[in-house]
Amino acid sequence: MSRRNVADVRVVALREGGRAVELPDRVVAEEPLEIRCAGPGQDAEPVTTTMRTPGHDFELAVGFLLAEGIINGTADVHEVKYCELPDDAEQLYNVVTVKLRRPGHFTPRRGITTASCGICGTAQLDELQDRCPVVPPGPPLPRSVLLQLPDRLREGQQLFDRTGGLHAAGLFDLDGTLLSIREDVGRHNAVDKLVGEAVLAGHLPLRERVLVVSGRVGYELVQKAAVAGIPMLAAVSAPSSLAVETGRRLGVCVAGFVRPPTANIYSHPERVDLDR
Amino acid sequence: MSRRNVADVRVVALREGGRAVELPDRVVAEEPLEIRCAGPGQDAEPVTTTMRTPGHDFELAVGFLLAEGIINGTADVHEVKYCELPDDAEQLYNVVTVKLRRPGHFTPRRGITTASCGICGTAQLDELQDRCPVVPPGPPLPRSVLLQLPDRLREGQQLFDRTGGLHAAGLFDLDGTLLSIREDVGRHNAVDKLVGEAVLAGHLPLRERVLVVSGRVGYELVQKAAVAGIPMLAAVSAPSSLAVETGRRLGVCVAGFVRPPTANIYSHPERVDLDR
Repeated sequence: MSRRNVADVRVVALREGGRAVELPDRVVAEEPLEIRCAGPGQDAEPVTTTMRTPGHDFELAVGFLLAEGIINGTADVHEVKYCELPDDAEQLYNVVTVKLRRPGHFTPRRGITTASCGICGTAQLDELQDRCPVVPPGPPLPRSVLLQLPDRLREGQQLFDRTGGLHAAGLFDLDGTLLSIREDVGRHNAVDKLVGEAVLAGHLPLRERVLVVSGRVGYELVQKAAVAGIPMLAAVSAPSSLAVETGRRLGVCVAGFVRPPTANIYSHPERVDLDR
Repeated sequence: MSRRNVADVRVVALREGGRAVELPDRVVAEEPLEIRCAGPGQDAEPVTTTMRTPGHDFELAVGFLLAEGIINGTADVHEVKYCELPDDAEQLYNVVTVKLRRPGHFTPRRGITTASCGICGTAQLDELQDRCPVVPPGPPLPRSVLLQLPDRLREGQQLFDRTGGLHAAGLFDLDGTLLSIREDVGRHNAVDKLVGEAVLAGHLPLRERVLVVSGRVGYELVQKAAVAGIPMLAAVSAPSSLAVETGRRLGVCVAGFVRPPTANIYSHPERVDLDR
């Protein structure tokens, strides 16, 4: 499975001296994994769907069930296997069923559950695209502004210096003005707080805005940006494969490793004005 | 609410030259938030529980519902409020109900749901303690070994250098030998993979082991360590308030900011041998 834990992408790499070059790059793979459970003679029921890097999936499933108290140890596990009804190879490896030695009742814990074996990043994007229009292009973001955003986010952080335990998300306009900032132990919560503020104020869709986050970018953050209509997401660290693919499909420009004087543009590079 | 987004703790601070001093410190607050939804004339149903830093809770609830497609915009929100039946002030602010302008069906998305307004970090820990015995103390971990662990984790990382998008979790013995390492876009997944490997191999409980993670530590990671019987969790970055409290109650020594020659011990400092 190790071949699937990284994905090849092409990036527009902003480099020193105002250069921009298209380069091959690698990002970490992110795919949904649905974990199902069944006692003896029971049908398998979905317990959770987690966004993970493929590999060691049986271990992931069993470790999750232990933490949730659904199993108490090795003796409770009868068998672990991938889905028996593969539609295609990609989906086959995204559903794991854990058969237990004793009956149990499994409350779904999280997220996206499906009726068949049809779960994979592409299927998840299809579902998202059904309810979320592609974000239309607006005026481009000047390269010089993009490169300043992480520093401006850090300047705006209120709690970070005191505890070191917070993720930040900031909403900026195309001039690089900080409009709002939220901090939280969870990166997804910080983004939800930012978007929720706009919902309550009647400011959706958030056209001509840039979402800036302090860490890495997975599928979930690009989803949240797209649903709010934000055309641009900039991060200090790396994006995942599904974050890049979601950006491409949903019309969100995803910039990663924004560390002046360099940055990588993973999707919709036309939304960055390289000459300003 | 801003008073609640940090928590005061006391730490044993390992400092240069073999010194150790007890100091006041601050950690970021982490508490569960249950988000409920109700259409006109409907009873409120729990949709999710998220571990978050208190503050901007209405925005968090509304932003989450938008991302999940449960609301499509401002016009769908009728009212947002905290729970009406508070048992105490802490629990009052950990349940948010969003009343919608149109009926809806709300599938629970995630985790811990409760029948009344009784949700807070303390209640969550009570529930965990009911099913998870306190991890007994074992031989102490030498301070010199603790301080080496993050470097050894980095040496063991296979993917990080290529993509920059991965969290790592490693399992070490008390001599600082790396026994297993897992990497994933999600920190919780990396830990589940590590623990799941031990479950499948029949190695639980993981006595005389140290779990080392590349980033921050929230409630969830300490929970996973405690359930697996791991007496010690070391992290390169900050713990949250509920991570510290969980460590104290469940018998897990939580060390944060492990950056030689310094580190902070937030719970059970007696499990670190300061003289070796």
